[in-house]
Amino acid sequence: MASAETADYGLLSPAWAGTRAAALTSDEALLQAMLDVELEWLRVLASAGLIKTEIPDAVAPACQANRYDIADLAARAQGGGNPVIPLLADLRGKVREEAPAAVGPIHKAATSQDILDSALMLMSARALETILADAYRAQSALANLAREHADTLSVARTLTQHSLPSTFGLKAAQWLHGIGQATAALEAAAAALPLQWGGASGTMAALTTAAVSSAAAPLDLSADLAARLGLADPVAPWQTNRLPVTALGSALADLLAAAGKVSNDVLLLSRPEIGEVSEPREEGRGGSSAMPQKQNPVLSVLIRSAALAAPGYTAMLQAAAGAADDERPGGSWHVEWQALRQLLRLAGGAAAKLAELASGLQVHTDAVARNLALAGPLVVSEKVMARVAPLLDAGAPGSGKKKVQGLVSRSLAGEDFAALLRAEVPALSEAEISDLLDPANYIGQSAALIERITSAYPGRKNA
Amino acid sequence: MASAETADYGLLSPAWAGTRAAALTSDEALLQAMLDVELEWLRVLASAGLIKTEIPDAVAPACQANRYDIADLAARAQGGGNPVIPLLADLRGKVREEAPAAVGPIHKAATSQDILDSALMLMSARALETILADAYRAQSALANLAREHADTLSVARTLTQHSLPSTFGLKAAQWLHGIGQATAALEAAAAALPLQWGGASGTMAALTTAAVSSAAAPLDLSADLAARLGLADPVAPWQTNRLPVTALGSALADLLAAAGKVSNDVLLLSRPEIGEVSEPREEGRGGSSAMPQKQNPVLSVLIRSAALAAPGYTAMLQAAAGAADDERPGGSWHVEWQALRQLLRLAGGAAAKLAELASGLQVHTDAVARNLALAGPLVVSEKVMARVAPLLDAGAPGSGKKKVQGLVSRSLAGEDFAALLRAEVPALSEAEISDLLDPANYIGQSAALIERITSAYPGRKNA
Amino acid sequence: MASAETADYGLLSPAWAGTRAAALTSDEALLQAMLDVELEWLRVLASAGLIKTEIPDAVAPACQANRYDIADLAARAQGGGNPVIPLLADLRGKVREEAPAAVGPIHKAATSQDILDSALMLMSARALETILADAYRAQSALANLAREHADTLSVARTLTQHSLPSTFGLKAAQWLHGIGQATAALEAAAAALPLQWGGASGTMAALTTAAVSSAAAPLDLSADLAARLGLADPVAPWQTNRLPVTALGSALADLLAAAGKVSNDVLLLSRPEIGEVSEPREEGRGGSSAMPQKQNPVLSVLIRSAALAAPGYTAMLQAAAGAADDERPGGSWHVEWQALRQLLRLAGGAAAKLAELASGLQVHTDAVARNLALAGPLVVSEKVMARVAPLLDAGAPGSGKKKVQGLVSRSLAGEDFAALLRAEVPALSEAEISDLLDPANYIGQSAALIERITSAYPGRKNA
Amino acid sequence: MASAETADYGLLSPAWAGTRAAALTSDEALLQAMLDVELEWLRVLASAGLIKTEIPDAVAPACQANRYDIADLAARAQGGGNPVIPLLADLRGKVREEAPAAVGPIHKAATSQDILDSALMLMSARALETILADAYRAQSALANLAREHADTLSVARTLTQHSLPSTFGLKAAQWLHGIGQATAALEAAAAALPLQWGGASGTMAALTTAAVSSAAAPLDLSADLAARLGLADPVAPWQTNRLPVTALGSALADLLAAAGKVSNDVLLLSRPEIGEVSEPREEGRGGSSAMPQKQNPVLSVLIRSAALAAPGYTAMLQAAAGAADDERPGGSWHVEWQALRQLLRLAGGAAAKLAELASGLQVHTDAVARNLALAGPLVVSEKVMARVAPLLDAGAPGSGKKKVQGLVSRSLAGEDFAALLRAEVPALSEAEISDLLDPANYIGQSAALIERITSAYPGRKNA
Repeated sequence: MASAETADYGLLSPAWAGTRAAALTSDEALLQAMLDVELEWLRVLASAGLIKTEIPDAVAPACQANRYDIADLAARAQGGGNPVIPLLADLRGKVREEAPAAVGPIHKAATSQDILDSALMLMSARALETILADAYRAQSALANLAREHADTLSVARTLTQHSLPSTFGLKAAQWLHGIGQATAALEAAAAALPLQWGGASGTMAALTTAAVSSAAAPLDLSADLAARLGLADPVAPWQTNRLPVTALGSALADLLAAAGKVSNDVLLLSRPEIGEVSEPREEGRGGSSAMPQKQNPVLSVLIRSAALAAPGYTAMLQAAAGAADDERPGGSWHVEWQALRQLLRLAGGAAAKLAELASGLQVHTDAVARNLALAGPLVVSEKVMARVAPLLDAGAPGSGKKKVQGLVSRSLAGEDFAALLRAEVPALSEAEISDLLDPANYIGQSAALIERITSAYPGRKNA
Repeated sequence: MASAETADYGLLSPAWAGTRAAALTSDEALLQAMLDVELEWLRVLASAGLIKTEIPDAVAPACQANRYDIADLAARAQGGGNPVIPLLADLRGKVREEAPAAVGPIHKAATSQDILDSALMLMSARALETILADAYRAQSALANLAREHADTLSVARTLTQHSLPSTFGLKAAQWLHGIGQATAALEAAAAALPLQWGGASGTMAALTTAAVSSAAAPLDLSADLAARLGLADPVAPWQTNRLPVTALGSALADLLAAAGKVSNDVLLLSRPEIGEVSEPREEGRGGSSAMPQKQNPVLSVLIRSAALAAPGYTAMLQAAAGAADDERPGGSWHVEWQALRQLLRLAGGAAAKLAELASGLQVHTDAVARNLALAGPLVVSEKVMARVAPLLDAGAPGSGKKKVQGLVSRSLAGEDFAALLRAEVPALSEAEISDLLDPANYIGQSAALIERITSAYPGRKNA
Repeated sequence: MASAETADYGLLSPAWAGTRAAALTSDEALLQAMLDVELEWLRVLASAGLIKTEIPDAVAPACQANRYDIADLAARAQGGGNPVIPLLADLRGKVREEAPAAVGPIHKAATSQDILDSALMLMSARALETILADAYRAQSALANLAREHADTLSVARTLTQHSLPSTFGLKAAQWLHGIGQATAALEAAAAALPLQWGGASGTMAALTTAAVSSAAAPLDLSADLAARLGLADPVAPWQTNRLPVTALGSALADLLAAAGKVSNDVLLLSRPEIGEVSEPREEGRGGSSAMPQKQNPVLSVLIRSAALAAPGYTAMLQAAAGAADDERPGGSWHVEWQALRQLLRLAGGAAAKLAELASGLQVHTDAVARNLALAGPLVVSEKVMARVAPLLDAGAPGSGKKKVQGLVSRSLAGEDFAALLRAEVPALSEAEISDLLDPANYIGQSAALIERITSAYPGRKNA
Repeated sequence: MASAETADYGLLSPAWAGTRAAALTSDEALLQAMLDVELEWLRVLASAGLIKTEIPDAVAPACQANRYDIADLAARAQGGGNPVIPLLADLRGKVREEAPAAVGPIHKAATSQDILDSALMLMSARALETILADAYRAQSALANLAREHADTLSVARTLTQHSLPSTFGLKAAQWLHGIGQATAALEAAAAALPLQWGGASGTMAALTTAAVSSAAAPLDLSADLAARLGLADPVAPWQTNRLPVTALGSALADLLAAAGKVSNDVLLLSRPEIGEVSEPREEGRGGSSAMPQKQNPVLSVLIRSAALAAPGYTAMLQAAAGAADDERPGGSWHVEWQALRQLLRLAGGAAAKLAELASGLQVHTDAVARNLALAGPLVVSEKVMARVAPLLDAGAPGSGKKKVQGLVSRSLAGEDFAALLRAEVPALSEAEISDLLDPANYIGQSAALIERITSAYPGRKNA
C-alpha cells in the first residue's frame, strides 16, 4: 500500500540489503512493533480490569502492519515529529469502522515516546536474535579454523612487516577472541533492553489517574507490559536518559569492529601476492562489470564497509544522548531512531556474511608456508638475540646485543644468517644453530592460547 | 515492482520524509541516474561514430527506472558489492528482448564505479537544485525579517545570560549570515560535481582500445559525457581521490549546521517563559499524542535533529576517503553512498523546513521588549563601566573600575542602579544617567551590520 | 626537564585543565605507568627465579618519571612510532650508569605494545578512581536534591513546551538515574581493564623461551603481573582486539552524555526568563572580560563542552578498532592513545564539575512555582481529556474528545479554562473542577519514581 | 614558568610531536597569538587617535608569551570558561607595574571571543604556512615520481585483486591528484581566515561608543586590525556562525585523507610479499623494541594514524557549529578550540612526513614487474573480451562473451591462456595473440593522465 517511488530497498547498502536482519528492521517491522506495543498494552489493561476484556481482541485485527500505507504515515509524521501520531489516527480509524466500542481505550495513558521507544527496543530484540545466531555460527566456524590450523606454521606480521613465527590457528583464534568478546557483550545488551513507559512527561500521571480504582499499581502494570513484550523492566522511565540506546549501539559497533578486523585480514591475505586464503566461492559472487577474470573477496569488502560506517552512527547516538534536555528532548531523540536501526542492519549484514566467510574460508597452507619461508631465518632474530647476545657479551654487558644487531644487519644486506652465526659465534654447535633457526621452535604459547580462546568462546549450544 | 516488506519509506526520518529532496534521492531516482549515465554514454559513442547511431534510441526504453524490481536488484547487489552488476544484467535482458542488436555496446569500456560515482553526482546535482532553491527562499525570508526588525530592540544573550542590548533584526541577519555563507559554498560545490570516467582501473584502457580508430580522443569522449550530464570534467578519474565526495558532504553539513543554529534559537525563543517567537501554524502540525494543548515547534525540532545527525555522516565520508587504497578501494568506497545520500536528504528536509519557518515566523515584539526590560539597566553595565570608571579613577588608575564593579554588585543584590549612579557619581547629570541607561543608545553597529549582511546575501534572482 | 615551548598545559581545555584527572593522565603520569609496568615485570621475573632477586631494586631508582626529558622522548617516538623505544634507550642508559649488571633483564620478553597498552590501562585505572569518586559525590548530591524537592511542584517540558505538572525532585532523580546508570557501567568497565602481555607478536614466544627452565608457565607469569598491577588477566593478548579500549571509551562517553543532560537542563533553567536554578557561586567564576554584571553558568558550560566533544573521540576509538589488521595494526593502534586519554580527562573534568554543581545548586522554588502557574490550567488538559471526554460522548464514541479539544483550543485563544468547563460540562461540580485543575493532583508516580531511583543508585559507602 | 607535571609534550602523538606545526600550535604559540591580537588592536586605536600613541609600545614588552605561567592560566581559565580572562588579569598586572598609564586602554571595546577566535585564526595562518610548504614539497616529489615512472609497467588492483595493467607513474600521479586538490582547497581556506571583532555581543557597541568622536567608523577600525594581522575582513562578526572553523577543519581533514590514501598504498606495497616500494631509510627510524630485524614503514604508519583521527575531530567541529545558540554559544564554542588545533597538528605532521616519504620513496621496479607477471595474461582479459567475443558471436549476439568467459575460467583453473586462445580462436594470428596479451599495449591514457595531473598541480614556485 506504500508508494514505491520514494522508497529505499537497500540499493546503496549491499552490506545488509536482502538479509534477515534487514527484513526484521524494515519500516513495516517497526510499524508492527509499534502496533504490538499498543495491543499488548490493551491486554495489560484488560487483565487488570481497567478496560473490558473483549477490547484487545477487537482491536487486534487492526494491528497488522501490512494494512497501513507506510509512505503516507511517514510523510504525515512530519506534523508531530514522530510516526505515532498519524499511526494512532489510522489505527483508530480502522477500529472505529470494525469495532467502534473499542476505540476509546486505545493508547490509554500512553504517549508517543512510550510507543516508539518500546517498539524500537522490541524491534532490536527481534533483530538481535538473528544477529546473535549468526555471530555464534561465526564463532563455531572460527573455532574450527583455529583448531584445524593449530599446527599450521605461519608468519606473524606487525606494522605490515614479517615479525615472528606463529600459526594460522592462532590468527583464527584471535579472530574468535574478538568476535567472542563482542558477541558476549552484545548478548548481555540484548538481555537488558528496557520497556519505556512513563506517559506524557515521565510521571505516569495519566496511568495513575486511570488506575486509581484498580488493585494494580501503575508500576506493576508497566512491569506486566515489559514481561509480555519480553523487555526488561527499568528502574524508571528513561525518556531523557539514553544509555539503553547508546549501550546497544556501542555493543553493535564493537561487533562490527571485530568483524572488520577479520575482514581486513582476509582482504590482505587473499591478495594475489600473499595468497594465504580465499573467500568461499558462490555462483554470482565476486564478479566485475568489466573484467571477466576478477574474483573479488566481496564478503570481506562488504563487512569492511559495514565496520567503516559504524563509528559515524555511534557518534550520532552519543551526540543525541548528550544533547537531551527537559522531560523529552526536542530533536536529539529523533536522531537516534535511524542511527540505531542502521547499526542493527550493519551488524546483521556483517554477522551473516562473517558466518558464511568463516564457514567456507579456504586456507592455502602452501602459501602460508611460502610466506614464512620468505621471511627467512631473521624471523627468529628476537630469539637469536636473547640466546646469542649473552654469548658475545665478553666482559662488556650489552656489547653482545650490538654484535648480534650487526649480524642481523649483515643478513638484511644479503649475507646468509646461519653462515654468519657459524662464523661469528663459535660457541654454537651446528645442531644448536639449526634448532635456533627453526621457526617451529619459536611459536611460544600458540597452542595454549588457542585452547584458552576456544574454551572461553565455545559458541552457543543451540546455535 | 519492488517488495514492500523490506522497504523504507522514511517512517523513522520525519526530518526529510515526504520532501522533494527525498523523492529526488530515492532508490528509484538513483537507479534512474545510473540508467541516464549508461544511456548518455551510448549517445557519446554514437556521436563519435564508435557505435551505430540508432543504438541509443533502441536502448532508451529500457532506461526507465520504474521498469526494474529495485528490491531484487538491491539483494543481488551483494554478489558484486554494488548495484551496477545486477542492473546491467537486467538492462541487457530487457534490451535483448526488445532490440537484440543494441545489447553489445551497452556499458562499453565502462566500469561499475564509473556508473555509480557519476550517477551519485548526477543525483546530487538534481537534489541540489531543490535544496539551493529552498535555501535561497530561506535567505529572502530571513533578509525580510532582518530588515523588518532592524529597530526592534532586544536583549542579546551570551552563555545563556542577558548580555547587551541588540535588535531582533541583527539576530535574523546573523541567521542569514550563516545560511548565506553556507549556501554560497554549497552552490560552488554543486557547480564542481565531476564526472567519473576511468574504466576498470582508471587508465581508460578499454576506451582507448575502443576508440583507437576514432578521431575522438578518449578524454574528449569523457568530456562530452560530462557536458551532456551537466557535470564537471575532472583533471583525471578520481576513483581513489574522494575529495569531490567529502567536499560536497562538508558543504551540506555546513548548511545543516547553519540551519541548526537557527532552530536552536527558535526552540529557545519559543519557550513559554521567553515567548519571543512562534513557529508558523499549520493544521496538523505540532500536536501531541497525549496532551491536547500542546503546540510544539516541530519545524525547529526536525531541523535540529537533522543538524545533529550530520556530523556522523561527514565522519563516515572522511573515514572512507582516508581508507582508500589501490586503484579502487575495497569497502571504503561502499560506505560513501548511503552517507552522501543521507546528507542530501537531511539538507533537503532542513532547507525546506527552514524556508517555511523563516517565511512564517511570528515575532512577538511585546515579549522581546519584556525580556529586554527584565534585563534591567545592568544590560548596559559595559557602557557604564567605560563611561563612569574614568570619572571615579581619582588619581589611582584602575580604581574606578573597581568602584563601578561595586555598584554593579550592589545592583545585582537588589539596589536600583540609576539611584546608585546618582548617589555615587555626582559628575553625571540626570539627563546623562538617563541617556546612559537607555538601551536604545547602545546597539552599536546593528543597523550597519544588518545592511552589510543583507547586501552580501541578497538571495537569488529567480529563487 | 622538558621543553616548555611546545608543551600543552590545557590552555584550550578549561573543561579539564587543572583537575585531578588531568594530573593523573599527563604525559608524566603515562610515563610513570610505563615505568611501573617495566619495573613490576622485573619483580615477576625475579619472583619466578628467572632473574636475580636484586635486579628490580637496582632498576627502581631509574623508574621515576620525573627523571626523563619528556619532550625529547616525544620527539624521538616518531622513529619507531611509539614512545617505548626511546624510553627503553634512556632507561637502560640510566641503569647502565647506576647498576650496570641490571641492564640486561630490562624489558625481557616484552614488546612495545605490551608496555604501552598495559600502561594505558594502568593510567586509566588510576584516573578512574578519581572519576568514579566524583561521580559518586555527584550521585549523593543529586539524591539529596531529589528527596529535598520531592514535593516541589514544577512544570514538565517536552519539545521545549510546558507539558504536565511534575516535581523538581523527579527532575533531579532523573539526573541521578542517568548518572547512576552510567557510573555503574563505568565501574564495571574499570574492574575489567586487562593487562596486555603477548610479546612481539602475541605468541609469548620470547617468554616461553626465557621461562623454559622455570617452574612457572608463561601464562602464570603474566597473570602474576596483572595481579601486581591491579589489572584483569585476559583470556589472551588483545593486541588486535580492541574491545577493552572501545568499551572503556563508550562507558566514559556515556557518563559524559549523562552529565551533558544535566548541564543542558541547568543552562536552560538558569536563563533569566526561567530562573529556576542558579549555579553555586564562587569567587572568580562566571565573570566576563567585557560585561561586569555577567554571572555565567560556567560549570554547566564546561560540562556541556565536554559532552559535545565525546562522540568524536569514541568515533576515533571505534574506527581504530575496526581498522586493525595483522598481529599489530599499523596506524590504528596509534590513534587510540590520545583519544582514550582525552575521554578520561573530559570525564574527569565533567565529573568533578558535576559534583560541585549538584552539591551547590540553588533551586529557586518561587520561580519554579511561577513557571508552573504560567502554564495555567491547560497543563492538566490530558487529565481533563480523560475525565471529561467520556462525559461528552453522548452516544457518539469519540465525539467527546473533539468537544474537549474545542474547549482547549478556546482556552489557548484566551478564554478561561475553568469557566469553559463550568459552562460546557454541567456534569462537573465546582469542587470537581477545582480538584481536576489542581496540578498537585496530577503528578502520578513522582514520589514512587524518586524512591526507586534513589534506592537503585545509593552512591558508594566510602565516597 | 609552567608546571611540567601536568603538561603534554606529545608523548602519545608521534604523528606530530616534534614537528614545526606542533611548535606553531603549542599553548605558548596560542598565547602569543592572543597577545599579538591585543597589542595590534592597541596600534589600531592609537593610529585612529583613540588612545595615546605611546600606549602600544608601552604595552609591548608585556606581550611576550614566555613571560606567562601557562599552566596557571590554564587552570584559572576554568573560572570564566576561557583563557582570555586570566590572561587579561596577568597582562594588566604586568603593565600596571611597568607602564601604569597604559593599563586602561588594554582590551578596549573587545571581548574574550574576539581575542580567542582571532588568535586561533592567526595561529592557524601561521601553522598553515608550514603545512602548505610541506604539502607543496610533497607535490613536487610526487610529480617527480609520476614522471620518472611514467613507463614503469605495473599491475593495478581493485578490491585488492589484480585488475589491469597500469604504470607506477600513474599511481604516483593519482597520489599527486589527491594531494594537489586538497592542497589547493586548503590554500584557499588559508586565504579566507577571518578576523573576529564584534564586542561583547556582536554589535560592536563598546567600540561604537569609544569611537563616537573619531573620524574612523568602527567597521573601518576592525578592517584595519584584520589587515594588520593578515586576516580577512568578514562581512560581519561570526561568533555564532562557525563556517570559518568548519571549513578550515574540513580542508585539513581532506588533506589528511589524501595523505592517508598514499600511506595506505605504501603500507601495502611495502609488505614483504609485494615489495614494490620501501620507505626512505633513516638512522633511528623503523626499529622495534623486540625484533632486531624489523624495518617498519613508520612514516606511513604515522600518516595513516593521523588520517584515522581526523574524522572524529571534524565531527566535533560540525557538532559544535550546529549546537550554537544565542549571541555566544554556551559550550559548543569551547569544544572547537582543541579540535581545530589537533587538525592543524595532524595535518602538519602528516604533510611533513609525506614530503619526506615522497621525496625518498624507493621503487623496486623488479618487484613491480614481478607482480605484473604474477597477474599473468588474464590481466588483459577485459581487452580479450572486447576483441575476441565478437569473433565468437557467430550468429548469436552475446554468445561470444560466454565463450570468452569460459576460456577465462579455464585459465583461472590452470590452463594456459595463450594456448587456449590459439586453440579456440583460430581467427587470431600468433602475432595478434602476442600483441593482445602484451600488458604494455593496454595502459590506455596513462601517459596523458600523468601529464594532465602533473600540469594541474605543478607545485609552488617558491616551495
